Amino acid sequence: MAPDTTDEPTASAPVATYTDRLTRLAELAGVSGADVVLITPGPDLAYFIGHSIGSHERLTCLVVPAAGRPSLLVPTLERPGWSGSPAEELDVAIGTWTDGEDPYAALAELLPADARVLSVDYHMPAVHALNAQAIVPGSELTLAGATIAELRMRKGADEIGALAAAGAAIDRVQRRIGEWLRPGRTENEVAADIGAAIVAEGHARPDFVIVGSGPNGASPHHEASDRVIEPGDVVVIDIGGPMPSGYFSDCTRTYLVAGAAVPDRVREVYEVVRRAQAAGVAAVRPGVTAESIDAASRTVIESAGLGEYFITRTGHGIGLEVHEHPYLVSGNTITLEEGMAFSVEPGIYLPGEFGVRIEDIVVVGESGARLMNTAPTELTVVGSPSGPSTEGAE
Amino acid sequence: MAPDTTDEPTASAPVATYTDRLTRLAELAGVSGADVVLITPGPDLAYFIGHSIGSHERLTCLVVPAAGRPSLLVPTLERPGWSGSPAEELDVAIGTWTDGEDPYAALAELLPADARVLSVDYHMPAVHALNAQAIVPGSELTLAGATIAELRMRKGADEIGALAAAGAAIDRVQRRIGEWLRPGRTENEVAADIGAAIVAEGHARPDFVIVGSGPNGASPHHEASDRVIEPGDVVVIDIGGPMPSGYFSDCTRTYLVAGAAVPDRVREVYEVVRRAQAAGVAAVRPGVTAESIDAASRTVIESAGLGEYFITRTGHGIGLEVHEHPYLVSGNTITLEEGMAFSVEPGIYLPGEFGVRIEDIVVVGESGARLMNTAPTELTVVGSPSGPSTEGAE
Repeated sequence: MAPDTTDEPTASAPVATYTDRLTRLAELAGVSGADVVLITPGPDLAYFIGHSIGSHERLTCLVVPAAGRPSLLVPTLERPGWSGSPAEELDVAIGTWTDGEDPYAALAELLPADARVLSVDYHMPAVHALNAQAIVPGSELTLAGATIAELRMRKGADEIGALAAAGAAIDRVQRRIGEWLRPGRTENEVAADIGAAIVAEGHARPDFVIVGSGPNGASPHHEASDRVIEPGDVVVIDIGGPMPSGYFSDCTRTYLVAGAAVPDRVREVYEVVRRAQAAGVAAVRPGVTAESIDAASRTVIESAGLGEYFITRTGHGIGLEVHEHPYLVSGNTITLEEGMAFSVEPGIYLPGEFGVRIEDIVVVGESGARLMNTAPTELTVVGSPSGPSTEGAE
Repeated sequence: MAPDTTDEPTASAPVATYTDRLTRLAELAGVSGADVVLITPGPDLAYFIGHSIGSHERLTCLVVPAAGRPSLLVPTLERPGWSGSPAEELDVAIGTWTDGEDPYAALAELLPADARVLSVDYHMPAVHALNAQAIVPGSELTLAGATIAELRMRKGADEIGALAAAGAAIDRVQRRIGEWLRPGRTENEVAADIGAAIVAEGHARPDFVIVGSGPNGASPHHEASDRVIEPGDVVVIDIGGPMPSGYFSDCTRTYLVAGAAVPDRVREVYEVVRRAQAAGVAAVRPGVTAESIDAASRTVIESAGLGEYFITRTGHGIGLEVHEHPYLVSGNTITLEEGMAFSVEPGIYLPGEFGVRIEDIVVVGESGARLMNTAPTELTVVGSPSGPSTEGAE
């Protein structure tokens, strides 16, 4: 056996919230030309019906027609896992199929009789998307991702509260980094302690723990290794995970390990990143484009002559996924609106030397950014016998 | 940031093995009518090039033309994560795309000029599959899953060795269940101890820990809850995870908690499942169908008048995924061949009462099943002050 379910947490909004989301999804689907939206387990399913379980190979699928009552198809043996979930309180018909039956034939029974345009969520495994199409002769597959993103990008008050709680929890871990980050320990050892603290401070689990010391910090997606922390190391700590609410934290700070003189270059690069990050945050307001935030941060780094070392986009949306729309990247002309949530995380990555990144989650407020993270951004020195010190506070 | 990579372990076969697999994939793809096979991160990628990392939303894609040299497209900022992987030693061109560029346009550059039939792996997210199709006007999407399964189903000697090591590791945990499963503890407490032991006995991580006590055992995919174990409980323990090799374990035993008289019904049901499981294993040999193993187990349970309570298929393939082809289910007429690996796990699920399941992983040998699990299948009583006792051994 093996449940092998997706581990998306169960969200817990009022039933009326899910009803409203399903209604709006059906409306937007109709506008986009879709006859029906199909959603398999993952964050989209949690967003729309408050629960998401499902084996990867046994079909579980939410069916939302542009007109008509939604339904949910689940494997018979997983039906007990939906007991007591919000899905049972919604106006959603729950159907089952049993091992040995054709799940796609069961799905076809739930589709509108004249369905021709089937719109599928971004995450749906190709096996389900193409088999669903095959069961409806002449049908066309489209992506419902943009439609779903229209809804998920705009966070409600409950969601912003959940992101604030996640931010506060990960900030508590960042403020404790000095307990673990010391010369002589490996990145892996430091990461294990941080992972435990992420849970101790209120997360459901750690999702990622990046400890990028010295040259490892120059690879943005380095996680942790057996490299031993040395005095004077610059160390990127990028950490986060889902809270029991399902909403994610994600926060980066870059630390300096005590015990060696700080080269001017480190101090200079750090301050460029700090100014770039502040510039990105300061540019956030309703009515500007996503790419304009990227440009605001990038300009600072380019002006310092370090543009070639800022090798990533400036940020990503966050919510029930750690990466979701909107993306702050050149070319993304979407207009920011109140309630959108994303990271602002410029960085400078110097191959073979070190990296610096500072990341906060912000929510677009009425007139500017609302910060979900408040851990200090001044260069903090850790690993000295007298405890951490914040350079900017000296 | 947040790497948010898939956590498929890195396999570690000799480079020649991956070369051979890629060659055979190209051959089979051609036979199936595909011009090119596209594979995104997941177990298929690990199988073919020995490494699988990748953000879920940034495109990473292996391109295997029916004729020509394979290539791999990765995001620039994840390129360091491929350093030192087998992919670098293979005859595979590694290309990159950078944030702000269109990854699908970059993908199009790697496709054969006349590619029209794009065959995608089962797990590919719809967003990648449909965007890949859109970049090639007039192209058709097909599923490469059946082609890939043709290769992955037939395990080589190294893979069978890896499955045997996984089986031995999870057997060591099953033999220690009496250390943790006692009246007065919750399922969650027992599951936490088992999870730690799964790692201590050699796994990379626990993937699932089912502790289904009393009525919870009647739901095949129940995981663990705050239900307190009671004297006399029947408890289904279904556990497994990937080894550092990437290959999975999966083994179920059903235990009896000491402290109450054993109702005849429990003993009878247990023995029916035990005979059904043994009958399934005994039916395994090259040349018979997958569904015949299901039938062999099911007949025993039906003959006992309990057929309606055997609500699952009899088994699933296992390897780099815990569930993969072949599935032992009515209607699957695939012929078993030497080297195929799967679970044999009939069960009886009595709603509101209890469940019994016994599961071993087997590999099809020259003349019959090779058992990867050897923990005893006799009804074992745990939780008594004098330690576990095996009824069948008394």
